Amino acid sequence: MSDVARLRQPRSDRARQVSDVLRRQIHGGAYESTLPSEQDLAHEFGASRNTVRAALSLLKGEGLIDRAPKVGTHVVGRKYEHGLDALLGLKETLRGYGEVRNEVRAASVITAPPAVAHRLQLDPGGPVVYVERLRYLGDLPLSLDQTYLEPEIGTELLEHDLECNDVFALIEEICDRPLGGADLALEALAADAHSAALLQTSEHAALLLLERLTALDDGRPVDLEYIRMRGDRITMRGSLARRPEPTGWEITT
Amino acid sequence: MSDVARLRQPRSDRARQVSDVLRRQIHGGAYESTLPSEQDLAHEFGASRNTVRAALSLLKGEGLIDRAPKVGTHVVGRKYEHGLDALLGLKETLRGYGEVRNEVRAASVITAPPAVAHRLQLDPGGPVVYVERLRYLGDLPLSLDQTYLEPEIGTELLEHDLECNDVFALIEEICDRPLGGADLALEALAADAHSAALLQTSEHAALLLLERLTALDDGRPVDLEYIRMRGDRITMRGSLARRPEPTGWEITT
Repeated sequence: MSDVARLRQPRSDRARQVSDVLRRQIHGGAYESTLPSEQDLAHEFGASRNTVRAALSLLKGEGLIDRAPKVGTHVVGRKYEHGLDALLGLKETLRGYGEVRNEVRAASVITAPPAVAHRLQLDPGGPVVYVERLRYLGDLPLSLDQTYLEPEIGTELLEHDLECNDVFALIEEICDRPLGGADLALEALAADAHSAALLQTSEHAALLLLERLTALDDGRPVDLEYIRMRGDRITMRGSLARRPEPTGWEITT
Repeated sequence: MSDVARLRQPRSDRARQVSDVLRRQIHGGAYESTLPSEQDLAHEFGASRNTVRAALSLLKGEGLIDRAPKVGTHVVGRKYEHGLDALLGLKETLRGYGEVRNEVRAASVITAPPAVAHRLQLDPGGPVVYVERLRYLGDLPLSLDQTYLEPEIGTELLEHDLECNDVFALIEEICDRPLGGADLALEALAADAHSAALLQTSEHAALLLLERLTALDDGRPVDLEYIRMRGDRITMRGSLARRPEPTGWEITT
C-alpha cells in the first residue's frame, strides 16, 4: 500500500488533493481558527511538508487562510451554505447567522426584453418590474440580485420594504398563496470589474451565477432572477437521489 | 413606463443586465451561431448601442462569443448541462452529446487521510482507493475528478476499464445493487495554474468545484469525489420545490 506521497504524482497534483480535503474540513468547521502545523498536516495526509506547503499556498491564494511565521495558519474566510434541497430566500437561509439587509439599487417598471417576457409568459413589449439589490449579511456583501417580476405582483411589491424582506416572502404575502418551486441554472463565472467592486471582491474572483425562475404553487412563473454570489462566501449544498421521486411540482408551459 | 436604458443606472449595471439575459439565451440555443446585430439587440433590450457593446464585451471576456468587424458576433463556447435532479455520472449525463473518455492520471490504494476516512466511515489510517481522471467529451476536457473509494469496492474497481466507464456504473456492477444518492457541496473557485493547464483553460478561470459523497441504496457511503468542472463548459441545472417531499434516502451516520 502506498500513501499519497508515494503515488508518484507531481507535487502540484498532490497539493491539489490535499487542498481539496483541507478546504472542506475548514468550511465544515473542523478547525477553530488555527490549522494544525505543517508537520502535523504532513503526517495526517501522508504527504511531504513541501506538498502541504503548496496546498496551503493554494488555499491562501483563494483568500481562505492567512499564514505568518510563528503565528501559524489562520482561517480568515467563513462560508455560508445555501440550500439546494428547498427553495428559500437568502434571509430565510441565513437565519441564525445574522441580519440580511438589501441595498436596493434599482426598483421600477421597465419594458420586458423579449427573452424575459418569454420566461415569465408575458406579452413581449409589455411591462415587467425590475429590482436590483446588493445583499449583505451584516457588513459583508454576499450577492448581487437582479430580479424581474410579473408586473401586477411586482407593482404591488414595489410598495413594500425591499431592504429588509426576501422577495419570496413578499410574493407569498401579496398573492396570499405559497410559491411552488423554481427551475435553476447554476454556473461559475469570473467577476467583471464592476460586479467585483460592488461585491467587494477582486476582479476575476470566481462567482456563482444562478438563474432562477420561480413559480407560484399553481405553476405560474412570477419571478426571474439572476443572482451573482461570491464564490468565497457561499457554498450550495444539497442531496440527490439516484432515482428521484417526482417533486409533484412543475412550471406551467 | 421606463425601459432598461431609462433606469438611470450606470452603463456597467445595464451592460450586466443585458449580458445575463443574453448569456442564458445563448446557452439555451436561442441563436444558431450568429447573434443579432448591435442595433437589433439594442432595440430588443431597450438599451443604447453602447450598453449592448459593453454587454457583448463582457461575454467576449468570458470566452462565450467572438466578434469581428463585418463578420459580426459568433457563439464560440458551447455549454453542457449537468443535472441537479438525479444522481448521474458524466457519461450518463452527456449521452447524446458524444463520447466521454477518461484519462486515468492515478489509480491505486493509498492510506486514507483521516478526513477522508471519516467521510467514508473507514478506520483512520486504513486503506482507501484513489482514482484521478481527466474527463473529456471528445477532445474537450470538461472536468478533473479526484475519487476516494471504499477499499473493497475500489480494489475490484481497479480491475475494470476506467477509461470508458463512469465510476457509478462500475460500483453498481461490482456491488450488484443500485446507488441510493449523494450529498453535494458546490462552490465556485478560480483555477490554480496547474488545474488550468490540465483543463486547457486560463489560470484564474472560474471553475465549479463539487464535493460529492455517494452512498449505496442501504445508505452506506462508498465514493467521495472532488470534481473540478470548467465553468465555461458546464451548467448545473435542476429544480427546487418550496416545500420538498423527503427523498426517502439518507446517508447512514
